[in-house]
Amino acid sequence: MQTAEAKFNKNNLLLTLRRYSSAVSDMEQTILLPSLLRDVPSDEMVDSESAEESCRDLYSNYLMLKAIRNTVESSLVPLDDHKTKNNAVISKTLEPLMDTDPEALFRFHLKGLFSVMCNLTKKTQSVTDKYMDIIGVAN
Amino acid sequence: MQTAEAKFNKNNLLLTLRRYSSAVSDMEQTILLPSLLRDVPSDEMVDSESAEESCRDLYSNYLMLKAIRNTVESSLVPLDDHKTKNNAVISKTLEPLMDTDPEALFRFHLKGLFSVMCNLTKKTQSVTDKYMDIIGVAN
Repeated sequence: MQTAEAKFNKNNLLLTLRRYSSAVSDMEQTILLPSLLRDVPSDEMVDSESAEESCRDLYSNYLMLKAIRNTVESSLVPLDDHKTKNNAVISKTLEPLMDTDPEALFRFHLKGLFSVMCNLTKKTQSVTDKYMDIIGVAN
Repeated sequence: MQTAEAKFNKNNLLLTLRRYSSAVSDMEQTILLPSLLRDVPSDEMVDSESAEESCRDLYSNYLMLKAIRNTVESSLVPLDDHKTKNNAVISKTLEPLMDTDPEALFRFHLKGLFSVMCNLTKKTQSVTDKYMDIIGVAN
């Protein structure tokens, strides 16, 4: 049975952000030679149909995860962000909600941020694990 | 010219969350008789075409803003949230991004949360101002 405290820890956004920062610190401390990650495909690339489009190796994942950690730790919102096509379409769909149901919009983004941070934490741990495999150290 | 510090304060998500909490505290301390807000239409109702659908008076706004403040202060993510139709459609659109471009998804939700919190802070200040008007106290 899940205790109230366990539930609190699991669903807490600020703790989730801290867990992510801590996973990236672990990754940085473990990966002493990041260049070993170059050209090593990530799982998503093997599984995904759009592998050739995204062209992501573990090294670019490593850089991306560090960049996101910096944004998380400063908690500065990149307002001059260039929107992807998808995001622009979705923002347009969400705009009317701002006036009619801001509470739904708040919950939508809160849950979305929480979910993406959980996913990125797993991704970070996976990069760390794969580096250990590459250098031949058992986890 | 905007200084670096001013920019930092303006675009910071955690400070924006705190500003919201503080605006709701002000609202609570000012509004000693919340029932005076019953049946008072909010601006959005007057302007919006969907006024009759949303049926929101200032009193329901007051309750909503306090409920959101409680979620913000606990930073607990409501995982058992019943999705609105709109949100379900949008979540479906966003899912593929989780694997192909989690960084874009992260920025999308970070900016979204920031933007909705700025909007809710203004809404809170507006409810406080309107209460002052109702009881005849000049701002």
